[in-house]
Amino acid sequence: MVSSEDRDRFGSITMQQSTSANGFSKMKALWLDNSRLVLRDDLPMPKSGPEEALVAVRLAGICGTDLALANGYYPFRGIPGHEFVGKIVQAAAAPERVGQRVVGEINIGCGRCRACLAGRERHCENRNVLGIRGRHGAFAEFLALPLKNLAPVPLAVDDEAAVFVEPLAAALQIQSQLTISSDERVLVIGAGRLGQLIARSLQATGCRLQVVARHLTQRRLLERSGIGCLGESEVPAGAYDVVIEAGGDPGCWKLARQAVRAQGVIVLKSTYRGSVRVDASALVADEITVIGSRCGPFAPAVKRLAEGQIDPRPLIEARYPLAEGPAAFAHAARPGVLKVLLRVTS
Amino acid sequence: MVSSEDRDRFGSITMQQSTSANGFSKMKALWLDNSRLVLRDDLPMPKSGPEEALVAVRLAGICGTDLALANGYYPFRGIPGHEFVGKIVQAAAAPERVGQRVVGEINIGCGRCRACLAGRERHCENRNVLGIRGRHGAFAEFLALPLKNLAPVPLAVDDEAAVFVEPLAAALQIQSQLTISSDERVLVIGAGRLGQLIARSLQATGCRLQVVARHLTQRRLLERSGIGCLGESEVPAGAYDVVIEAGGDPGCWKLARQAVRAQGVIVLKSTYRGSVRVDASALVADEITVIGSRCGPFAPAVKRLAEGQIDPRPLIEARYPLAEGPAAFAHAARPGVLKVLLRVTS
Repeated sequence: MVSSEDRDRFGSITMQQSTSANGFSKMKALWLDNSRLVLRDDLPMPKSGPEEALVAVRLAGICGTDLALANGYYPFRGIPGHEFVGKIVQAAAAPERVGQRVVGEINIGCGRCRACLAGRERHCENRNVLGIRGRHGAFAEFLALPLKNLAPVPLAVDDEAAVFVEPLAAALQIQSQLTISSDERVLVIGAGRLGQLIARSLQATGCRLQVVARHLTQRRLLERSGIGCLGESEVPAGAYDVVIEAGGDPGCWKLARQAVRAQGVIVLKSTYRGSVRVDASALVADEITVIGSRCGPFAPAVKRLAEGQIDPRPLIEARYPLAEGPAAFAHAARPGVLKVLLRVTS
Repeated sequence: MVSSEDRDRFGSITMQQSTSANGFSKMKALWLDNSRLVLRDDLPMPKSGPEEALVAVRLAGICGTDLALANGYYPFRGIPGHEFVGKIVQAAAAPERVGQRVVGEINIGCGRCRACLAGRERHCENRNVLGIRGRHGAFAEFLALPLKNLAPVPLAVDDEAAVFVEPLAAALQIQSQLTISSDERVLVIGAGRLGQLIARSLQATGCRLQVVARHLTQRRLLERSGIGCLGESEVPAGAYDVVIEAGGDPGCWKLARQAVRAQGVIVLKSTYRGSVRVDASALVADEITVIGSRCGPFAPAVKRLAEGQIDPRPLIEARYPLAEGPAAFAHAARPGVLKVLLRVTS
């Protein structure tokens, strides 16, 4: 049962207690109560607002953030999941979109604050984030999102590629923040889910790319795509123009700092528990730029997939039905494991 | 006496033991031996290399870095001082420049490393820095610098303005790293020597500028120039597009982080002892950019002074003869004190 407390935490949504247009009254979903993940079949259908759509989830991906939430990165109670591909099943304001296969931008801005009015909705101070903050997520039979968040998926992109649009957009965000040219030496720290996508998305720049990979399977996967790898201890000092930290633990900061040249750039992509100690004066002396980088726009990600420029499907390691969600999470949490998918409807 | 150990530390220079072209054999200078600052009159004249010039110092400024060195920021033994205006008295490779009034770029690159070859001499890994690393500085009757480091000072810029070229160049470096437009809200933390110059140099952008000033005199000086000030506790959260940290202590990082909006920029200008604890994941979530900023090119600074766009002279708080250097340092170290100058020759 969803308590009133749950509804308070996820204040922006109410859950439909009655039968929906599709004839369902309750739905199956994974439910995370702080660190306890369970499958439930008694959850009310999400109710879509007037400018929103109800989406039947087809496939969803487990991401590092989901694992962090399940590890207590911050208090979370609700349905997690934010990487998905699905089909619109209800859209009062745009009935012509019903049946459309879509992926969804996960940030929902208030539309009224300074950030929203300046076109920076992803940084709305009051935002809800699908499966992360204030809005139930994609590890469910259904989810609701504003229509404008939902991007149609071209036929050329199958479900197993489309489910990568959200993390690929996050990887491509780096290139919307920073121009990387072909003569630059770039190091990606981390060859996990995000590191793999970042490395693949950087290949098109023609830059001199290397990736710090901890696990042999991750390394092989990259090398098969023509991307050079090295171990942590092999990273030369001050040798890179750009270092992208996607390693997912505080120790990677130190490695990034050692690897970057003076006047170079460190891009931070990973989030983790805990803070790092930074010698701010040395950042000044060496004129280092540090860029925090989170989500990105969906359109370029869909385009790259449609054009076949990036194929993320080799990253898929396992597929589980939604009902086996807890086992899928356990699999995804194993060291070195890449993408684990949850099949919801097909 | 200069011991052989001193010569080793300052390996790039040797000191002339014999009578120089100017008839001097020994010179007066301030000598810093870790934290002990003394006036000495037994120091050998600096010997200028083939592509270098010998400069008679006229006026020198005491900067925060000098005070930090005297406080043991890192081990230093030699003649400090790097803000100066002087006259070329010897220049074997360019005799036509003798008599020229000059200011000097303080970084001396090796000319051979990757940074130097890429035109980033200020970040040469083997660089010497006037009065800071490997080269005796400006709190002396004479100094030596490569000819290419020395920029002539136009007549329109008097000595008391010219002595600010180095710190003004450092302030202007921000604008060579970051475009600041007139609609942006910019906060400068710190209204000391560097903060004052940064604020004045930003005025020309027309940006919406505010300065966190701790001391009443600093505040009055800025307000007299039409720059708005506020106290630390009055800084609104997340309200600034750009925050420039020139406060000089680790606590300012926290203030900068609170003041900047999501997707905003923090420019780090101050160096101090100790490190700061940084929530790297929050930098990712808010997509904050942090830019370390140190020295800048001299030409734009000389130009702004010559055009009268910036007048740094109101910052001068006291003038001392070189012989009273230790007293001048003590004065400069008092809280809230701005620029203290040392008159060497006139």
